[in-house]
Amino acid sequence: MTVRSEPEVIDEPAPMQRRVAEERRAGRTVGLVPTMGALHEGHRSLIRLARQRADTVVVSIFVNPTQFGPDEDYEHYPRDFERDMAACAEEGTDLVFHPDPGTLYAPDHSTWVDETSVSAPLCGSGRPGHFRGVCTVVAKLFHICAPDLAVFGRKDAQQLRVIRRMVRDLNMPVEVIGAPIVREQDGLAMSSRNRYLDPSARRQARCLRRALDRAAEAVRQGQRDAEALKILMTGVIGEEPDAALEYAEIVDGETLESVDRIEGTVLAALAVRIAGTRLIDSEELTPDEEESPD
Amino acid sequence: MTVRSEPEVIDEPAPMQRRVAEERRAGRTVGLVPTMGALHEGHRSLIRLARQRADTVVVSIFVNPTQFGPDEDYEHYPRDFERDMAACAEEGTDLVFHPDPGTLYAPDHSTWVDETSVSAPLCGSGRPGHFRGVCTVVAKLFHICAPDLAVFGRKDAQQLRVIRRMVRDLNMPVEVIGAPIVREQDGLAMSSRNRYLDPSARRQARCLRRALDRAAEAVRQGQRDAEALKILMTGVIGEEPDAALEYAEIVDGETLESVDRIEGTVLAALAVRIAGTRLIDSEELTPDEEESPD
Repeated sequence: MTVRSEPEVIDEPAPMQRRVAEERRAGRTVGLVPTMGALHEGHRSLIRLARQRADTVVVSIFVNPTQFGPDEDYEHYPRDFERDMAACAEEGTDLVFHPDPGTLYAPDHSTWVDETSVSAPLCGSGRPGHFRGVCTVVAKLFHICAPDLAVFGRKDAQQLRVIRRMVRDLNMPVEVIGAPIVREQDGLAMSSRNRYLDPSARRQARCLRRALDRAAEAVRQGQRDAEALKILMTGVIGEEPDAALEYAEIVDGETLESVDRIEGTVLAALAVRIAGTRLIDSEELTPDEEESPD
Repeated sequence: MTVRSEPEVIDEPAPMQRRVAEERRAGRTVGLVPTMGALHEGHRSLIRLARQRADTVVVSIFVNPTQFGPDEDYEHYPRDFERDMAACAEEGTDLVFHPDPGTLYAPDHSTWVDETSVSAPLCGSGRPGHFRGVCTVVAKLFHICAPDLAVFGRKDAQQLRVIRRMVRDLNMPVEVIGAPIVREQDGLAMSSRNRYLDPSARRQARCLRRALDRAAEAVRQGQRDAEALKILMTGVIGEEPDAALEYAEIVDGETLESVDRIEGTVLAALAVRIAGTRLIDSEELTPDEEESPD
């Protein structure tokens, strides 16, 4: 891999706004990859996709306090700016936006962007306020970085759909691109939180992928009942001693509303704590076309 | 007054986004005046201010359903597009954005911009959801019209402050300009709702201005007690038989929090129903510099 030149680092909103305005005046399109740092191969794939699609690639690195609950891992979330900068450079990032929390949130911050439908089920029910924090920071980053397009991983399946809905509802002039999940060799979806797993937990964490594979196989075999698929996935997760299921759901692929029958594309979605570390994974399932009964 | 050429009317978000992108590529600045139509001299003054400050002036005309409560006057709010277009043309408007409600809000619209502090007192307490609707539609209009600056009337004193807070908190790249209140000869602040007033109500409506004048005079005379000023204003409103006070408040000029003593600049703010029509008015009061005691 070619090492590209060091990206330009900007740590405040106003200089970033001026910098991207220059890019746009020069006729260059801007692609944004919002991240919380701790960049892994999944993030790199997002940066590469932005690199293909936009003239100027901006990566934001910001551990957003407002999307963490009071008992969550904000304080301990991995931060390694030097390593992240090396990854950004290697993938051809032009600009890195790396603000302090105090720069992005005034002490009397009082404005929130709240998506109230797509964000309600799944992670939304277990993490109250999470998607409000996500929408608020993404809206801020869009206003600061003025991207033509922004790339998000499909691994955060609900987040991607919530952001698409926000962009549609608020008429944000940004194309939202969902990038494929990148997995470890054994199928575990890449996540900055995987580094919390000790070897035993890491081994058990394969159950998420296994549960999704089993559900997909059942759908291929003709299973169309959502409840049966949920029971199947729950059973697979239950095979691991340190796995605690948060949810195993079959929902509409766009609105994330519960479905009873697998008709159009659905999302099979899982959240599981493995020895205390919360992991999510999901897969879109589409039943094969069946002969229409005459 | 010179009649300028007819403005270009655009009624959907995407063409408007393309149109303002052209303006910006050509190096022209864009000024937006968001209105609900029924344009009067107050609105015209906003358009003139935008005309002075920006190369391209956009006026949006949209009676926003989400800022009206269920028992409010959304259905009956005055609409007169032909007359509004004439006013826009006379004041030198370049583009008019005039969408249908169905174009701006999808049936499953679910994303809201919610300012939770500055919007809480005054009109916010009597009109739940009002400022959420205002912030949401203004955010949408900013994303659609991409203005460099936007002009709002100081007559809607709380709205102006809520929007400033939203712009700050969400890092919107828009300069918010507050324009002076335009008044009728007898002091009544211009409002599209003044046309609801019959002659008797119209006469009684002068009490808002009179109450603010009395409060300002009392401050000039040395009154520094907020409660005394509220009682004074309440008394003036009570002089009119068909006037029902909603609030008479003395609040911090920026945060709109209640104050006990007049120290820095405060806002004296009134909401009064005159024979059923809700009117608001306000004035910033600043005590004269006093000799500092030795």
